[in-house]
Parts: sequence; C-alpha cells; structure tokens
Amino acid sequence: MEKAKIEVCYSPALFPFYENHEALVVVTDILRASSAIVTAFMNGVEKIIPVGSLEEAKSYKDLGYMVAAERDGIVRDFADFGNSPYNFTAERVRGRQIVYSTTNGTQAINLASSGSQVLIGAYLNISALAKHIQESGKDLLVLCAGWKNKFNLEDTLFAGALAKRVLEDEQFYTICDATHGAMDLFEAAETDMMGYIEKVAQRERLKKNQLDDVIGYCHELDLTRILPVLDGRHLVPLSDFS
Amino acid sequence: MEKAKIEVCYSPALFPFYENHEALVVVTDILRASSAIVTAFMNGVEKIIPVGSLEEAKSYKDLGYMVAAERDGIVRDFADFGNSPYNFTAERVRGRQIVYSTTNGTQAINLASSGSQVLIGAYLNISALAKHIQESGKDLLVLCAGWKNKFNLEDTLFAGALAKRVLEDEQFYTICDATHGAMDLFEAAETDMMGYIEKVAQRERLKKNQLDDVIGYCHELDLTRILPVLDGRHLVPLSDFS
Repeated sequence: MEKAKIEVCYSPALFPFYENHEALVVVTDILRASSAIVTAFMNGVEKIIPVGSLEEAKSYKDLGYMVAAERDGIVRDFADFGNSPYNFTAERVRGRQIVYSTTNGTQAINLASSGSQVLIGAYLNISALAKHIQESGKDLLVLCAGWKNKFNLEDTLFAGALAKRVLEDEQFYTICDATHGAMDLFEAAETDMMGYIEKVAQRERLKKNQLDDVIGYCHELDLTRILPVLDGRHLVPLSDFS
Repeated sequence: MEKAKIEVCYSPALFPFYENHEALVVVTDILRASSAIVTAFMNGVEKIIPVGSLEEAKSYKDLGYMVAAERDGIVRDFADFGNSPYNFTAERVRGRQIVYSTTNGTQAINLASSGSQVLIGAYLNISALAKHIQESGKDLLVLCAGWKNKFNLEDTLFAGALAKRVLEDEQFYTICDATHGAMDLFEAAETDMMGYIEKVAQRERLKKNQLDDVIGYCHELDLTRILPVLDGRHLVPLSDFS
C-alpha cells in the first residue's frame, strides 16, 4: 500500500506551494480562532459560517445573523462578540448559526477549501483528530493560520504535535522540512509549554489587550472528540457531514 | 538609543510581509548557492551577476560570459559549470566576472535588493557577517532562499545561528516568532549538525545526484572574512562596495 504523506504549511501565503487536492487539510489558529470554533461546537453550535472580510460579516449581521468578528484581537463594534473561546458559551451558541471573521483563521479556512476534506484542529480535539486522519489513510496537510501571513510559533507547535501523533501510524511518513521543524520545536516546548509560549508574539498582543486569559485553555488536551469540518461554505460537526 | 530588530523570513514568497527598507538583508541558501558565492569570492572572483531566469543566463553566455547555472541540482547544458562550491576554484574564477543562476538562491538575492544593504551569508563567513551587522547597528532581516518557496531546514538553522550571534550584542532584540523558531532549531541541531542534516530534504536531493559531497564543507565555520554585497545588480566583496 502506498503510504500517506504529511506536510505542514506555515503561512496562508505559502499554501499554493503545498496545495494537495488529495489531502485532508487541517486548519489551525490556536490563539484563538480554531480553539474558539472547537469550543463553539462543544457547546452545541449548529453551524459556523467563516467569512474573510469584515464587510461580509457585517452584511450577515444586517440579515439578522449572530456575528463574532475581530481584527487584531479587538471586537468590531457591529459584532455580537469577539474571538475568545470563552465567548462561545452554550447559552449563546447552542442550536444557532454563527458568522465568524477573524484576523487570520477564517481566511485560512476558506483558502483550504480545495482539500479533499477541511477540518479544524486544536489541542482541544487533537486525539480525535489524529485518529480520524489515521483512519482516513489520506495525505495530511496542516495549514497554520499564522499572523498576517507571517510564521507563528503557537500554530507550528500544534502542527508538530499533530504530525508526531499521526506518524505513530506507520502508514504515514514525512519528508517535509516544515513538518520536521514543527515536530522538533514541539519537542523543545512540550515539557514546559506555558514557559515556552512566553516568547510567542501573539501572547504579547493578547496580553496588551488583556485577552491572554485563554492561553492555558487553548493548550488543554482533548476536551472533546468533535471535529468541525467544512461542508460547502459552512463548518459543521463531522457527524453531520453530508 | 533605539534598538535594532532581527527578523527571519523563511521563504521568498513571504518577503513582502517582512520587507524592511531600513534593514540589512542577509540572503542565505546554504545548500548550495550562498556557500558557493562566498567560496567564489574567497577564490578571487571579481564580480558575480546573479540572474533569476535561465534565459537571461543563456543570453549572458552568448555574450561570452562565464556562466554557472543549474536547476534542481543539475548543470544546464549551455553553462560552464553548476552549483557546487567546489566548482568555483581559483583557477577558474580569479579576476573574472561570473553569471550565476540557481533554483532558489539567485532569485532571492534579486528579490532582496530593496534592503538598505544586501549581503550573502553562509557558515563560511558567519563571524565576519555577525560583526558587520553589529557594527552597522541596523535592523537585520535574514531571507532564507528555501526550496521553491517552501520552508527548508538548512537555511533556517543558519538564520538561527546568525541571529543568536548578533543578539549577543544588546543593541539588538527580536520579537519575531520565526527568529525564535530558527534559534531553537539551531540549538536542537548544533551539537550534531551532520546528524541533524540527515533529515533535511535537500540532502536527499543532492545525494540522489551524487552532489552531497559538499554538505560538510557548507557547514564549516569562518573560512573567510569576505562579505559579498549587492552593488546595483552585481555582487562584489564589501571592501570594493561603492
């Protein structure tokens, strides 16, 4: 049997060079969009509509949708709330459809839609995600949302963590330097993840806006087995995937 | 005094997001273009003309220039020789002008030309390079040539090695995740660099074409203090810089 390959793409701007229509694409934006999306599904959201532009988010708002929208960590004034996973409470989101637009993550999701399946990855669902990928036997491409097309560490560490787990299954291999780099950085960080995260630029951005209370939460493992998956233009739980 | 910042850009395709007209830009392509260029200057080449396209390289050849040109490690048939540093011997290059075109490195050099000064970096000249950067007091942007716009490990390790040295001078700082990542990968690799390099995709490519004999040489430290610098469209030794 042909083995399945793992690659990691560090920036949406590099996606064209890694694009693989056969692959499962896992989009990650650990601080905070992908962690917030997984949390929303844990709390019973029915559907999330990721949109790139604020204009599009606002036009959904005008149609009566609940909208979460931020740029550079700041909630936009037309939005119902912003990007903290703590906003996506059961009281707010259960059974609802939410439109979501963030600085990096939601654009990356839409960019990734050429993959054979697009999943949202976070530490919160990492074990279920690794198992799903292994069972699929397909190539894996992890797309890091980054920061305004620059490399970021927190998404890279997650990509490394996920790649390491998937590679435990010998039907997978990698010859991708970015995957090796991500795994080696994760190994350097994992014994003291919160200590390591202190050097991350996004931590400073969140701290400046007193939004860094979620960093510990966003690195918790396996709070759920739910896998958000892109179904056309919407995110739904994998179990509802058409 | 305002401190000078260090950033690392992992791919030419990300350069627009890191571009800094105030910065010294160090272009690196350890395996093998930047190591070959430094070697050529060690061996007395007068000037190197880096060109992006093979068509341009060939038109220089038709004008009578000596041309080094390869793609994917293979010498092009119109060229005098390819991309191994071992080709750039004193017998061949002393006092001459050479036109040079490679898969990744020479395009990156031309891309970087918006920097306040563009230098070619390799382990072969790393100490002289770090000293020059520290004496300049300017921002530093390291541009990794990568592999066809993908991230590569060997350039990243060099970027980390250089950043660590420059940061020993307290007038420099970094808040760049890519710089932290590069330094941490270098730290993971440095105690056994040749062992680490075994996982690098470029090593496999070179090996397949029996071109991997240069890998040890390309990681030797400080064989020269010569710093190739871009002067208009040509590379010259920094001492000749107009």
